[in-house]
Order: sequence, then structure tokens, then C-alpha cells
Amino acid sequence: MRADQNSLWPTLFVTCALASFSVAISFHWWSRKSRPNSNGYAEKFQELEAALKAAVEKCSAERQGRIRAQRALRDALNQPHFGEAESKLLKAYPMAQIGVVKSCFSTRNGTPRQPLLVPLAKASLIFDLTRVPQASLEGLEGYSHCWIIYVFHLNTNLDKLWKKPSQSKLKAKVRVPRVKGEKIGVFATRSPHRPCPIGLTVAKVEAVHGQTVLLSGVDLVDGTPILDIKPYLPYCDSIPGATVPDWVKMDDILAVASVSFSEDFSSSLVDCWATVEKKSLYFSPDEFRSLIKQVLSWDIRSVAQRGHPHNALLKTDDCSREDDNTIVRNNDREDLESGHEPQSHSFHDVIYHLALEGLDVSYRIDSIGNVLVEKVCLGSSMQNGDKNIS
Amino acid sequence: MRADQNSLWPTLFVTCALASFSVAISFHWWSRKSRPNSNGYAEKFQELEAALKAAVEKCSAERQGRIRAQRALRDALNQPHFGEAESKLLKAYPMAQIGVVKSCFSTRNGTPRQPLLVPLAKASLIFDLTRVPQASLEGLEGYSHCWIIYVFHLNTNLDKLWKKPSQSKLKAKVRVPRVKGEKIGVFATRSPHRPCPIGLTVAKVEAVHGQTVLLSGVDLVDGTPILDIKPYLPYCDSIPGATVPDWVKMDDILAVASVSFSEDFSSSLVDCWATVEKKSLYFSPDEFRSLIKQVLSWDIRSVAQRGHPHNALLKTDDCSREDDNTIVRNNDREDLESGHEPQSHSFHDVIYHLALEGLDVSYRIDSIGNVLVEKVCLGSSMQNGDKNIS
Repeated sequence: MRADQNSLWPTLFVTCALASFSVAISFHWWSRKSRPNSNGYAEKFQELEAALKAAVEKCSAERQGRIRAQRALRDALNQPHFGEAESKLLKAYPMAQIGVVKSCFSTRNGTPRQPLLVPLAKASLIFDLTRVPQASLEGLEGYSHCWIIYVFHLNTNLDKLWKKPSQSKLKAKVRVPRVKGEKIGVFATRSPHRPCPIGLTVAKVEAVHGQTVLLSGVDLVDGTPILDIKPYLPYCDSIPGATVPDWVKMDDILAVASVSFSEDFSSSLVDCWATVEKKSLYFSPDEFRSLIKQVLSWDIRSVAQRGHPHNALLKTDDCSREDDNTIVRNNDREDLESGHEPQSHSFHDVIYHLALEGLDVSYRIDSIGNVLVEKVCLGSSMQNGDKNIS
Repeated sequence: MRADQNSLWPTLFVTCALASFSVAISFHWWSRKSRPNSNGYAEKFQELEAALKAAVEKCSAERQGRIRAQRALRDALNQPHFGEAESKLLKAYPMAQIGVVKSCFSTRNGTPRQPLLVPLAKASLIFDLTRVPQASLEGLEGYSHCWIIYVFHLNTNLDKLWKKPSQSKLKAKVRVPRVKGEKIGVFATRSPHRPCPIGLTVAKVEAVHGQTVLLSGVDLVDGTPILDIKPYLPYCDSIPGATVPDWVKMDDILAVASVSFSEDFSSSLVDCWATVEKKSLYFSPDEFRSLIKQVLSWDIRSVAQRGHPHNALLKTDDCSREDDNTIVRNNDREDLESGHEPQSHSFHDVIYHLALEGLDVSYRIDSIGNVLVEKVCLGSSMQNGDKNIS
């Protein structure tokens, strides 16, 4: 619609310019020469007739131009207006993000399933000073913990949701890993796929520097938009007697048997460290190594993968977006087959991947839950310059 | 802008109609009469001259009309467009409410300062089935408690906030009652006046009936829009070791010394009960009386009123919107002066008011914190038919 109107204007302008110009000229020229004398009236009549004809033509051209412009105007005004769009969205409260999370977890895979599970899981909440004055954080460092209210920005259905919040319906029930096969009403779960994709989590407040709050024990993926943070008030928020249904007690968070590192892990980490050091939330390769150990101390694989790691390998493509920790790279396979990796036949030959601070951590896990961290390399996101990490 | 354009159109149409009409006529008339013959050339010249003059004038009129229409079009298109408004609001996530709270607390005054303080404080969360299928609540009743994420819909600055979320700035620091005079960064408080006016509270799950969740121990005012509810998970949400700054420990929630009821309280309650019974969250006048007792067991007056109840009385008009519990009605004063109420000179002669389920509960409190509940009557909201209660 707008394109049409834009392309219309030049034409209109040229038309009208020519029209008015020629009308003016012809009228001027005619009035100069038409002092009637006794000779050549017929000639003058023709001139005059021509001039009048021209004037009338230009007039109708102008008229066409006006009508076209007015049609375009009507169309433009018939389109939804800012005011209308706004009032439409008054039912849907426009919650503007106040900041963004810079987290060690580059992808959902490996991000802990609950807060405070990985003490070394660091994040910085960087507040948008155009929305939030720095002074609004004063006093926060006095609390040990804070709530973070955020947007599940990685949900795949969000575009639809934002465009027509009142019309976008979600599945009423979700499959929970703890109850095999069974579905539970979404409001009986903490699933991200909720009518309002708002997340609630708690973290330890490490420090407040200017517009940045340093947190630990987070379960937030890098790039998460923040809507609000609130201090954790034990006398309100901690309910000793609170109970949950039995199926929730069947905890799906499994500790692994052991986490060990391959011989050339350290050298591979040192190689990468130079690249991430400046923007890292961690002070040294050793601290980063400890993070890896803490993250992999819990089996971060999906239920399906635990049961059938080889299926998981075959299903890589199916679940690569939602669950991108079983991508087997050719060079990994070669390493494996050519025996560059320590030979441990008890390990599945599935290479799992974990992205921390944009680094690609590859590991294997055996049938009894011993994890071998093989190496770290620059993730594709690092090579392409990941927006999340910066 | 649009108003101008609307008023512009008729003028334009009349102008162009007249213009084209007269041009057509004059040209037609001229061409019929201008078969040149040998007589009266001078006259013909004048006619022709006039016709051409007219044509040129109409032409410029048409031109003016076209230009005006094109200007209007440009202005219309320069206004924010639906597409633009939407993309603008993608930063501000449009969170559509999933339901609304029907609570016993008709106004902010008397609504507890924290959850679970008033066990009998009942509310029903009524979910909007166009947004939330009923099945989405299945399994919720298995939890003892749930989080409620809601909108602070009574904040007075919300209109501005919804219209320009990115531009609306709030005060960085807020005055907290616990720290006299001192201000704290808003994110170190649970103040409702936050960049995103999102509230977080917990309540006891009593039952789930169809699209309605019955709660108790709420601190929610009637009519609160709900964005989300989540089950309370002790292993995530309860943090035994969590600490708060010293100023938070200075608890401003004061228990009163006693709560007693005047002689004619019961009869006044019975009189009102018939009106509220059908839509009440309570089963009997006795249960409602117990609610009043629980609510008034905590001093719900503002810090200022506690210090200077008579000032509070004088300041009625100033704080009647924010803090509408000191409105003294004439009939109350008369009752008081004519001694219809039990004479207790230790009581301040300030009548405080509390609205529960739209009923107006009047009480007095003496200097050592003994509360005398005087009577209940139909609140103005009941007589006018309060939208919140229904």
C-alpha cells in the first residue's frame, strides 16, 4: 500500500508541474498576441481554441491527480492506527524489558533445571539505563538472594503471541519428564510454554556494580530479557510447610557418578581462553574448569537420551534445535575412530556438546554415569560472533 | 490530524465539483457558439478570453486541491503505523492477562502487607477461558501453595506507562515505612511502583473448580489482573539461609492489642448479609466476622496515622484516594456525639473504615491498640453496584 503511494507521488508531481507550467505559458502567450486587430481572426481563433483545449486537459489531469491522492489518503487512514494498536494492546499490558542477562549458559542445553543447583553458574544482569536509573539498585546488595522475573524468549511461538496475544492459545497440558508419558496442566508445572511466557527464578546476589548486578546459581540462558527483580524476603517467600504432589518428588535431577577430564583438555582450554578471557564471567581457566565440573555433575541429557544414547545420536537432527547436545562433528568422530582420545570402551561413542560462554565443551558419558570431558574449542557462535555473548 | 483531514474533504470535493462542472459548461457553451462567422469577432474574443480565464482558474483550484490532499496523505503516513507500533512494542512484551482476582479486599486499605498473614483472606482466581483452557489447571490442586504473578493495576501512572513503556521513567528510590524518611532503591523493595508493574505473591491453594482457583491467605485487592500462576516448589523457592538487611528486620507489621465488637455489630452485619450472601466468598456472617477480626488484628493504618490519628482525620481529603480508611461520615460523627456508640473515652474519635466484599466496616482504635469494630453497612460501591464485586 505505502509502496504504491510512494511510487505514485513522482508521477503526480511531474503531471501537475507540466500542467500548470504549460497552462501559464499558453495563457500568457495568448493574452500577449490576442490584441484583436482586423486581420487573421481565424488564426487567432485556432490559437485560442487550442489554448482553451490545453487548459481543459490540464485541468482534468490535475483533477485525476487530486482524486488519486485522496484515494491514497483514505486507504492510509483506513489502516490500523497507532492509537488503535495501542488501545488493542491495553488488554495486553506492554511490559518493557528493564535489562538483559549475560549468562555463562550460551544455550538451553546445560542450563540447570532449577536455581542454586550450580553455585558457579554466574550471570550479570545489565540494566538499561534509559529505563532504569542506576539509583534504583541501591540497597539490593544487602540481600543474599533476589527473584528474577524474565521472559522465556526462546519459546518458538512468541511471534504469534506478541502479534495477537488475545488470540494465541497454548496447549493446556504439557508432558513432564518426571511423569513418563503423562501430561499435566501447564499451571501445575514450571514449563516455559505458558499463556504469558513469564519465568520466575531466584539467584544469589554477589555484587552490584553501577547498572550491573552480579549473580550466581542462576538457571538463566544467555540473552534472557528481564522484566523485574525483587529482593527475596524469607518471611514472605519461604514457606516451611509447603507440599507438592508425589510425582514432583520423583526428582529427575540425577547426579552423575564422576566427572573427569581428558589428558589434552587443559591445553585445549588454554588455547581458547585467550579469546574469551576479556568478556568472561570467570577469573581463570581453573575457575571455568570448575564450572564445567559443576554443570556436568548433573546429568543434563534428556530422558530419551539417557535411555537410548544411540537413538539420541540418530535423532540428532530431530532434536538439534530443542536439544542441541548430541551433535556429532566429523572431526570428533575421526578423533574417536583414530583413537586420539583415551580408549575407554565402556564409554558410548556419542559425543555430547555443551556451550558455556560460547565455548564448545565436548564430553562422553558411560552407562554407569561416569563423565569424561574431552576438550574445549571455540563454538561456531564464537567464530561467527555470537550476539548472545558480547 | 485526522480531524483536520476529515473537515478538509467536503471543501475539496465541492471545489473540484464546481471547478470541473463550470469548466465543462463553459467549454461546451464556447465550442457550440464559436463557429466563427464574419460578425461580432470582438464579442467572441471576450467570450473566449473569459472561458480560458475560467479554465485556468479552475485548473489552479484543482491543483490546490491535489496539493492539499497530498500533504494530508504525507502527514497520515508519517504518523506511527500499525507495523511500526507493533515492532515498537516487541521490545515491550504485550502480556495478556489470563484472568482476574475476585478478592475479599475491595480496596488497598486493609489488604495485608504480605501473604499468609490473614489466613481467612479468600480470593478466587477466575481464568479467562478464551485465553486459558480449563485443562491447564489440572494438577494444580495437588500443591499446597502457588505463586501469583499479577499487574499492580491500581498504580496511578499506568496509562502513561502503557502508552510509552520505553519512555516512561519511574522514581529510582522509594520511601519505605520501615526506614523513617530514608529512601531505598526500588529494586531493593517490593514497592508496586516499579518499571514493570508486576507483582509476585504466594497463596494457599484451597481448591480448583473448573476455571476457578480458590485461594486463601491472599494479599491481593479485588479486580487484580493475573498474568501467570505457578506451583510453589519448596526445593526451588524456599531458601533456608536467605538473609535480608537489618532495616527489613524492623518489621512494620504491628499486631493490635485486642479486637472487640460493638453491641449492635452483629445486627448490622445480619442486615447487610442478605445483599452479599449470594456472591460472598464466605459461608456465614460468623465466618465474615472472623475475617474482620483477622484483618484488624494487624494495625492497617499508615505510619502517619498511627503517630497522629487526628492529623490523619484532618488529612482525610489529601489521602482519601491512596489511603481511604479515615473518611469520617456525618452519620458516624452524629452517632458518636449523640453517644449511640458505647462511650469509651480512651478511643480516638476517628472512625476508620475498611471495605471487605464491598461492605463498609467502621472501627475505632485506642492509643494502646485496642480495636472496637462498630458496625457494618453497605458501602457506596454496593449501592452503586461495584464492578469489582460481582
